[in-house]
Amino acid sequence: MLVPFADVKPLVHAILEGCGASSATARLQADTLLEAELRGLASHGLQRLPRMVRRIRSGLADPHATGAHVWRRPGFLSVDGCRGLGPVVGAAAIEALAPVARRDGIALAAVRNSNHLGMLAWYAERIAALGLVGIVLSTSEALVHPFGGRRAMLGTNPVAIGVPVAGGEPFVLDLATSMVSMGKVHDFALRGRAIPEDWARNADGEPTADPDEAMRGSLAPFGGAKGYGLGLAFELLVASLAGSDFAPDVRGTLDAEHPCNKGDVFLLIDPLGGSGRAVAAYLDALRSSPSASPSVPISVPGDGSRARRRQALARGIDVADAVWNQLTSLAGHPA
Amino acid sequence: MLVPFADVKPLVHAILEGCGASSATARLQADTLLEAELRGLASHGLQRLPRMVRRIRSGLADPHATGAHVWRRPGFLSVDGCRGLGPVVGAAAIEALAPVARRDGIALAAVRNSNHLGMLAWYAERIAALGLVGIVLSTSEALVHPFGGRRAMLGTNPVAIGVPVAGGEPFVLDLATSMVSMGKVHDFALRGRAIPEDWARNADGEPTADPDEAMRGSLAPFGGAKGYGLGLAFELLVASLAGSDFAPDVRGTLDAEHPCNKGDVFLLIDPLGGSGRAVAAYLDALRSSPSASPSVPISVPGDGSRARRRQALARGIDVADAVWNQLTSLAGHPA
Repeated sequence: MLVPFADVKPLVHAILEGCGASSATARLQADTLLEAELRGLASHGLQRLPRMVRRIRSGLADPHATGAHVWRRPGFLSVDGCRGLGPVVGAAAIEALAPVARRDGIALAAVRNSNHLGMLAWYAERIAALGLVGIVLSTSEALVHPFGGRRAMLGTNPVAIGVPVAGGEPFVLDLATSMVSMGKVHDFALRGRAIPEDWARNADGEPTADPDEAMRGSLAPFGGAKGYGLGLAFELLVASLAGSDFAPDVRGTLDAEHPCNKGDVFLLIDPLGGSGRAVAAYLDALRSSPSASPSVPISVPGDGSRARRRQALARGIDVADAVWNQLTSLAGHPA
Repeated sequence: MLVPFADVKPLVHAILEGCGASSATARLQADTLLEAELRGLASHGLQRLPRMVRRIRSGLADPHATGAHVWRRPGFLSVDGCRGLGPVVGAAAIEALAPVARRDGIALAAVRNSNHLGMLAWYAERIAALGLVGIVLSTSEALVHPFGGRRAMLGTNPVAIGVPVAGGEPFVLDLATSMVSMGKVHDFALRGRAIPEDWARNADGEPTADPDEAMRGSLAPFGGAKGYGLGLAFELLVASLAGSDFAPDVRGTLDAEHPCNKGDVFLLIDPLGGSGRAVAAYLDALRSSPSASPSVPISVPGDGSRARRRQALARGIDVADAVWNQLTSLAGHPA
């Protein structure tokens, strides 16, 4: 159903405040979920809220924690998330890093023991809005098989990169290193549609077109051996810096039973007045370069999200009925 | 022809010293070329040496330059390569960064006005050998079309990531964000073989199976929209930090007529005793996880390179006759 943004927002705030979150915490956590919905990324949107509420009620997520910060070196911030909500711990880390990145040119935070970040673009955009270049990495449960493999051994290991653009919206890239998200497979299952055979393998490691079987199996990495290599590099990088677990041992981003032991890395770089204006001109040249399908002009990562966001703000957010019913029920029965 | 490594190495040193390179410079530049050959990456190997010699003789490459270093912030090194050779300027930047990364946890160099780096794995390995995590980026001439596009607008924009592994060889990933390298297309042309239609487009922007047409056209990004997004993010990141040019204006990595105006970024992070041992165990679990083709076990990036290197050291380097003739001629006629 289409729900006006103005109706959804207070509902989500009320649900989170009903679990004991401060209004500042509710605002951050709600914003990541709602921004994902506005951009058409339902897998990182409101469907995650009921689980989040269960995690808060059972103590697996602490709505008051912002993370314990230890500067192990002048440019290296180690964060124990103390079971805090991903966006709260993430935003606090970025706030701590920004002045250091401006002072030293660069600063990094490695985070463990924090809950699911949600859509990484939210963080990259936040960093770019400060005039800084941002790189954000996060790991997850084992959902992806190695190139040529049959068993899930890697996380979906997304990366987001934000670059400020003079006089315009920042460049924001956000992608998982799996070929598709498990959320998309879930969506095909709900609609009773088959998935392409190169997307996933079943629990026995065989290629499958059945989305239900795929959800019990593993996703392919994107881009063959190269995408596998990148996902693996991010897996090692995050675990090495954050001291977090490797995918086969990770729990807690998709369940309401386990502490969350994946890791996150935030890297902020001051471009020191670098070529923001040249970036804008280059991106425009890209957009107007010849397209293979004249009806589909070349787009730059983030263009589609921004268009969907404008449309959703005007027309409303398309929330699955089941999710909307859960939310209204949660709002009526705060803990 | 197969040439013993012991015969090739002194020849390459002699050629470089014949152009006025010091023995230290010759050693660094020769090592990147030879390591590429040993790993089967001929596109970054000896075939580049004759052009390099022409660039040195015409002043487009200065074998004495190591780069002018300005620490614009405590963790941000700005390098004017002063037309130096890529590996000489790169190695000097890494040497300057390493103690800062150990002191502050992280340090970055942004390099412009330096010649072609060659194989990026060489740098990531060098950084990992210091016990540090390394990320290396470099840009190039426009060779890659955007996803859905018809004209080369992006560089091949490779990335290398190195992660130290306790008690073993480091993890080293090195990949271009194009589907294949122009060197591979060149190789198909030499053998008179057609290329798959999804690799490249011709100068008119149409898909082509003709490698000669592809060399005058553009390569596809790897992994569809995601690979395009990554290549573009690296393009913006490098240009923003190094103040280097964007792909359509870049010259000098493939010709002997123009100064080289691409950019490079080196990022070093101290894992502060992070999970090197856990990395080793995880990589072994990956390698022994079930494979879709039982005769082809799962490999980790770098495994294949190391195997090829061992074999080439034992059997010799496979150098194209034409390249070998050029080299022996160059060695006989120093400038």
